[in-house]
Amino acid sequence: MFSGAQISLYPMSDDFVRIILDAVQALDPYRDRFRIETDDVSTLIVGPPEDLFPAMRDVFVRAAHSGVHCVLSAAVSRGCPGEPDDPICTPISGAGNALPLAERIEAACAHVADAAFTGQHVAAQFSLYPLGEGHHMDEIYGCIDFLKSSGVFDCSKNFCTKLGGDAGAVFATLSEAFLRFGDARGHVALDITVSANSPSKRA
Amino acid sequence: MFSGAQISLYPMSDDFVRIILDAVQALDPYRDRFRIETDDVSTLIVGPPEDLFPAMRDVFVRAAHSGVHCVLSAAVSRGCPGEPDDPICTPISGAGNALPLAERIEAACAHVADAAFTGQHVAAQFSLYPLGEGHHMDEIYGCIDFLKSSGVFDCSKNFCTKLGGDAGAVFATLSEAFLRFGDARGHVALDITVSANSPSKRA
Repeated sequence: MFSGAQISLYPMSDDFVRIILDAVQALDPYRDRFRIETDDVSTLIVGPPEDLFPAMRDVFVRAAHSGVHCVLSAAVSRGCPGEPDDPICTPISGAGNALPLAERIEAACAHVADAAFTGQHVAAQFSLYPLGEGHHMDEIYGCIDFLKSSGVFDCSKNFCTKLGGDAGAVFATLSEAFLRFGDARGHVALDITVSANSPSKRA
Repeated sequence: MFSGAQISLYPMSDDFVRIILDAVQALDPYRDRFRIETDDVSTLIVGPPEDLFPAMRDVFVRAAHSGVHCVLSAAVSRGCPGEPDDPICTPISGAGNALPLAERIEAACAHVADAAFTGQHVAAQFSLYPLGEGHHMDEIYGCIDFLKSSGVFDCSKNFCTKLGGDAGAVFATLSEAFLRFGDARGHVALDITVSANSPSKRA
């Protein structure tokens, strides 16, 4: 299994370089478990699938605490067939994707209910792409059922689902969607956008 | 067929609201062919698949001409099974996805070579997600072959491909990847990031 994310942080501020450099320090506690590479468009983090969303949450919350309108955008992937197996990506514990959808939804909701509170309100939207063989729309619809009972569901939009709430619960929900839906050994990708401090009103 | 995109524009500037409001005026020539809806996270454009990337190009180039570091992020989709058919999405002409991969690659390269020059250099990266039945990795690898001969190929990265060059050729390349790869009537999604005026050096 290969798992990781290409992440980008966008602070809407003249001071964006300083805010980004400060926020990425939140990756420090994860550095021994991650491979991290940065270029001019994104930062790659490769590591255990369970650690990806906590790491992104910590980076984003640190940036959002600046008070500036910030967005985190990421392409998150597991099981990509073009990538080698990598020992650092081995899941710490089984994500339980072999269970029936209803049991996975229940387990995912329990994890979200346990998420630590960060005090940072965020809006998020994401698309789940279960690739390759199998019933990709069944998994997407099952994931949507989970989202609707996650406590942070906002609305369905064309091509994506919108969430809103504390960053702790929102990133936990994204993580559960990534870990528990789509075939356990299959290729699953998530396209996520998380926003804080927007001056725009919710639609 | 339903086709459209959720697009977001991120100017890294204190003046981001003005830059965004100015840039979206570049959508005006497309408004009679698009359905457009905006909330606090993204703007939905629904319309003919051939018009999506020209519209995104015009919005992005207008924002980038401010000189500010700007990023456009979008989830682009066609054939999503959860969406109704919509007459405004009907392709103006057949995209020719029924042709063998080699012929599609040749046709795609010819379209990119004809792209109008904008004078705006951009870096871009994207992931192609052909969903549902079929040989999703064959289509991805065929698309990568096209990208390597597009003239704007930069490098392969984990989970995505990076492009660089004039915005005209780069958006044309993204459009060809979207229109010509993956099943003609299938569900195809693209996750794109386009960046201009970054102070970071290329890796």
